[in-house]
Amino acid sequence: MDSVDPTRAFVKDVKRIVVKVGTAVVTRGDGRLALGRLGALCEQLKDINSQGYEVILVTSGAVGLGRQRLRYRRLANSSFADLQNPQNDFDGKACAAVGQSSLMALYDAMFSQLDVTSSQLLVTDSVFRDEAFRKQLSETVKALLKLRVIPIFNENDAVSTRKAPYEDSSGIFWDNDSLAGLLALELKADLLVLLSDVEGLYNGPPSDPKSKLIRTYVKEKHHGEITFGDKSRVGRGGMTAKVNAAVCAAYGGIPVVITSGYANDNIIKVLQGERIGTVFHQDAHLWTLVKEEGARDMAVSARECSRKLRALNSQDRKKILLDVADALEANESEIMAENEADVAAAREAGYEKALISRLALKPGKISALAKSMRQLADMEEPIGRVLQKTEIADGLVLEKVTCPLGVLLVVFESRPDALVQIASLAIQSRNGLLLKGGKEAKRSNAILHKVITTAIPDTVGGELIGLVTSRDDIPDLLKLDDVIDLVIPRGSNKLVSQIKESTKIAVLGHADGICHVYVDKSANLDMAKLIVHDAKSDYPAACNAMETLLVHQALFNNGQLNEIITQLRDLGVTLYGGPKAAVLLNISETSTMHHEYSSLACTVEIVDDVYAAVDHIHQYGSAHTDCIVAEDHEVAEFFLSQVDSAAVFHNASTRFCDGARFGLGAEVGISTSRIHARGPVGVEGLLTTRWTLRGKGQIVDGDNGVEYTHKNLLKLSQISLAE
Amino acid sequence: MDSVDPTRAFVKDVKRIVVKVGTAVVTRGDGRLALGRLGALCEQLKDINSQGYEVILVTSGAVGLGRQRLRYRRLANSSFADLQNPQNDFDGKACAAVGQSSLMALYDAMFSQLDVTSSQLLVTDSVFRDEAFRKQLSETVKALLKLRVIPIFNENDAVSTRKAPYEDSSGIFWDNDSLAGLLALELKADLLVLLSDVEGLYNGPPSDPKSKLIRTYVKEKHHGEITFGDKSRVGRGGMTAKVNAAVCAAYGGIPVVITSGYANDNIIKVLQGERIGTVFHQDAHLWTLVKEEGARDMAVSARECSRKLRALNSQDRKKILLDVADALEANESEIMAENEADVAAAREAGYEKALISRLALKPGKISALAKSMRQLADMEEPIGRVLQKTEIADGLVLEKVTCPLGVLLVVFESRPDALVQIASLAIQSRNGLLLKGGKEAKRSNAILHKVITTAIPDTVGGELIGLVTSRDDIPDLLKLDDVIDLVIPRGSNKLVSQIKESTKIAVLGHADGICHVYVDKSANLDMAKLIVHDAKSDYPAACNAMETLLVHQALFNNGQLNEIITQLRDLGVTLYGGPKAAVLLNISETSTMHHEYSSLACTVEIVDDVYAAVDHIHQYGSAHTDCIVAEDHEVAEFFLSQVDSAAVFHNASTRFCDGARFGLGAEVGISTSRIHARGPVGVEGLLTTRWTLRGKGQIVDGDNGVEYTHKNLLKLSQISLAE
Repeated sequence: MDSVDPTRAFVKDVKRIVVKVGTAVVTRGDGRLALGRLGALCEQLKDINSQGYEVILVTSGAVGLGRQRLRYRRLANSSFADLQNPQNDFDGKACAAVGQSSLMALYDAMFSQLDVTSSQLLVTDSVFRDEAFRKQLSETVKALLKLRVIPIFNENDAVSTRKAPYEDSSGIFWDNDSLAGLLALELKADLLVLLSDVEGLYNGPPSDPKSKLIRTYVKEKHHGEITFGDKSRVGRGGMTAKVNAAVCAAYGGIPVVITSGYANDNIIKVLQGERIGTVFHQDAHLWTLVKEEGARDMAVSARECSRKLRALNSQDRKKILLDVADALEANESEIMAENEADVAAAREAGYEKALISRLALKPGKISALAKSMRQLADMEEPIGRVLQKTEIADGLVLEKVTCPLGVLLVVFESRPDALVQIASLAIQSRNGLLLKGGKEAKRSNAILHKVITTAIPDTVGGELIGLVTSRDDIPDLLKLDDVIDLVIPRGSNKLVSQIKESTKIAVLGHADGICHVYVDKSANLDMAKLIVHDAKSDYPAACNAMETLLVHQALFNNGQLNEIITQLRDLGVTLYGGPKAAVLLNISETSTMHHEYSSLACTVEIVDDVYAAVDHIHQYGSAHTDCIVAEDHEVAEFFLSQVDSAAVFHNASTRFCDGARFGLGAEVGISTSRIHARGPVGVEGLLTTRWTLRGKGQIVDGDNGVEYTHKNLLKLSQISLAE
Repeated sequence: MDSVDPTRAFVKDVKRIVVKVGTAVVTRGDGRLALGRLGALCEQLKDINSQGYEVILVTSGAVGLGRQRLRYRRLANSSFADLQNPQNDFDGKACAAVGQSSLMALYDAMFSQLDVTSSQLLVTDSVFRDEAFRKQLSETVKALLKLRVIPIFNENDAVSTRKAPYEDSSGIFWDNDSLAGLLALELKADLLVLLSDVEGLYNGPPSDPKSKLIRTYVKEKHHGEITFGDKSRVGRGGMTAKVNAAVCAAYGGIPVVITSGYANDNIIKVLQGERIGTVFHQDAHLWTLVKEEGARDMAVSARECSRKLRALNSQDRKKILLDVADALEANESEIMAENEADVAAAREAGYEKALISRLALKPGKISALAKSMRQLADMEEPIGRVLQKTEIADGLVLEKVTCPLGVLLVVFESRPDALVQIASLAIQSRNGLLLKGGKEAKRSNAILHKVITTAIPDTVGGELIGLVTSRDDIPDLLKLDDVIDLVIPRGSNKLVSQIKESTKIAVLGHADGICHVYVDKSANLDMAKLIVHDAKSDYPAACNAMETLLVHQALFNNGQLNEIITQLRDLGVTLYGGPKAAVLLNISETSTMHHEYSSLACTVEIVDDVYAAVDHIHQYGSAHTDCIVAEDHEVAEFFLSQVDSAAVFHNASTRFCDGARFGLGAEVGISTSRIHARGPVGVEGLLTTRWTLRGKGQIVDGDNGVEYTHKNLLKLSQISLAE
């Protein structure tokens, strides 16, 4: 965790916990005991108990269990004639009497297996009015807890004089939820956990996929918004009782979490501060809930602002970038001060040198950022470019036009200057943006975000660019596939892979960069040596550096491979052989040919010909950048047409695979995905297209309304190099 | 299920089941009992027992449980001095004696709660050699099963004379896996289920994400492939024992399933014929395993063939399409016969008329399909088109070139002609293809697939196009995001939504088509009436039909709205009002403005101006196609630039939003996604791009290797309409 989530900070002080488990958790849909869930609950309570927490259990389910057992018993004891008579339902109190002892026997058997002693405490509403009783109960529970015994509470239904169903809610408690709330207060618990059959409190029926889990209940905000009771939008009567009990306990000073009892470790997760379930806390209205439904709200606001930005003309959009550039320079000293604070904190925390170097804004960096932002502002307008134009019918003209993607989520590590670059790209491409930076650059990111958004005019709104501050929000954001259009991770391969694994939103990036250089038998040896040297050593940690060298068999035979190998060794490159090269060159064999070294090391393999080279690349490559060095034009063209990678080069170093070198302007990243954008991606990767059709009232009318002409009105033509 | 999966057909005949639960399931990582899993197991066995199956349980875990309890007991009985002495480990047989009674007490307690009687049978290896014993054991078990009692077996470790760990595997059984196998054979069970801590048998370590679950073990195929034992690629010693026992029982005639005991309902799923875990069956080598790793293999083969297809020149690719067209015509009578069989079966099954009409190939349809395939063959080559060309430096030229996406998965309903169209698009765009049609067109699809793939030359391979026959395979296919590049659902909105929900692969399609027509106050009323009429009634079920009519307030005031309304009513359109229109027009209010009627009905709402119209569309629309009818040019252009939908029209019917009408040739679908393709999608949506770079040996050398020129060598230019 970047920092303790303020909505879960209270768990630090928890020692005594009341856990209430409802009938819907204890029994299954068919009314039978849910033994698996009960067993898992006992395991969990044993673990918590062992960790030194004091656990008090309030359990439901006895009446249902008793009814089930009585039904079975009556069946077993019935004659055939009995069975033909109508069967009365059982007395509720009889069911409670049978069920309670049965349930306690089970708890006892299960806890005993775990070497835990449990105990039974049956209470009634009426007796709670007696102060002496309450005092004595506290003492008893205290004594049990001291012995690490788990008290198990239930209402003493079998001898209660109230009539079931207890419609009267005038008592001190009227169901196990309110009993649990009452006990939490009486026994001075530090936390009340109500286990439900849903994840927590939703703002609509939990079965409706549009309903959102409320992470923190704020009385002022949610009380009117959510309707309970029979006509409840929440859909479960049980939730009303839970929310009432929770509000009561929370405003009595006991934090409450409603969470699912279907998962096997939710109580432990709550105690570890994980953001599950719904929290009720008397101070909740004071918390800044950036998180919560906040993640979604941020994305929606960013989209709304981006629509306003889209309405501006190029001049007005340009002015924003220039204003932001000015603001950065005007606030340079404040920005540098915050950055220095980050750097100092990182040094103190003992971060590694490379990270601190990436974190620190060098003198002159702010001016440089402002300068490149002004350059970007001057670039060609990317939005509204006509890519296709067709006359569909007389006076009916179709255009395919570039437009912003919508809302981008960029997750970046360390470098605070990345925030500025990404923000300027977003403004230039008129997209909404959510940014999540590294925690080590927290203060730098905060001030840069403030300076930039303050310079954005109200006609657009500063919420165009949202800054996400807690890593905990990332999973929430990655779920918002209806309001976020593209995720761009800028950081380690691990970050990219993790994000790809955990979202349905399109991700722009590459995980692996296993680039090959294939040296054909027709290669110019000097050229091959230069290219191999550059591809491996120009910047070995880059994703476009060579990781595997493939060489034609003939070059082994004529000794040329030896020259290349000697050169690599002289450079200090550690060599690992494929099965063939390992034997022929007497080098150690690599364990896998799908390996990205990202350092002065590479795999070498000898192949029979260009076909074998292409097969090798398809089998072991990562479809990033692959190169052939060859003088034989036909062989080279075969390689160029066949290798199924984002970038395929002939007689040029793999290191050219880069947005700036490709002339794309600012680089968003390099994509190995086949969808949307591939290879180095510039501003174009932040755009999509729309179709506009301008007519004079044409209608389709079963395709008799117009005479289709389908004339292409745009053509691509070669510009001679002389122009 | 479309049809019974042949690899699970054996479950139909199962009555007597042996279930073996291993130590890794019964206990947790810390050695304690996994009460939750045991409870869930008892619930599951009770359910199976109630359904009339005869259940025999073989359980492990007693020794571990005994050790746990003895450790606790020793601690409780120790003096402080005792605790300071080194503690010996416990005698294994003592642990077994303590653990066995403890474990049986727990089973008894849990089964009792479920009104099931269980029983204990402890056996030793030596006694199994005695035929009289085996016979008597069978009788005893038979008697218990007749009384619906669950026999619980374990090896009688406490009194066994063998030494633990039982390294000697020379006995009749040597662990609980082999005991379970032996009992299954002796007690003439119909099925043996071995519950493990992993999903089944993998072809590599289960922790490696690249390892694949083996759905059906085929001795001939897998025996050499998978290494067991300590150096096992499978990584768990326990799996070796399970596979040995499973092979032994399976070839003795008892089907075996190895599946996870961590899920709560896997035994029930196995009995329902669900394709989980690994099956061992003596006839497995005879089954045609289209499925299995088959789903993956199909996709990989399709990719390999598509690479070969990519190597062909345009003429050779064209010839394939022409050959396929000829083959369709040559096999017309056979195709029609199979189609008639499908139609007859659908009639018999009482399918609705519309479905049967979509299913039937009309006379002349085959020729029409062949004709359009020949037209497609003649179209411009889509692959290798240069979209961007830049001189990066002297003699270093970069091109962005179109190329196939890779492998497409198309899921379509009813129409067998869709198979032909999709297959021809795939060949034209040189993509691999996996097809899944509706079960009602099973025979038609099979013959069409056979005819088409037979006509594909061996230089490419018929596996270019795979036909998926069982709906069960779809979830498997949707997981293959590393080998399938795009999913195209052609069918109901429900189908599209379901697929979008369940895959990370990009999905081309639209779920909702909530199209708006906004009639501005500047509109030509006659034009507005024509467009509204066409947009709603030309084909109301189409996704590009108008669902919401927005009208400027002024047109209500001047009575023009009334004319439009009257026209719609005359057409038989049922009108629902937004909050404002419902009152002003006195029509019933719609429950939601985000609604696709797909019939002669629509929502009407009155808005203040074009700004309100745009807001309404953003709030309630589905970003498909939206139209403004206006004479005010400025208002129209504002609408065109601001509405954030795939297609935005001015003075033209929404019904024009269609691939054929747009002049895109064959339509793949209409996309409301913003990534990859948007709006009507033609062959272009089946393509991606690659970057090729041709040089003369240029290197980067810290960007000092070349002088960057970045000259654009291609330009888009307007073609005048006169040309």
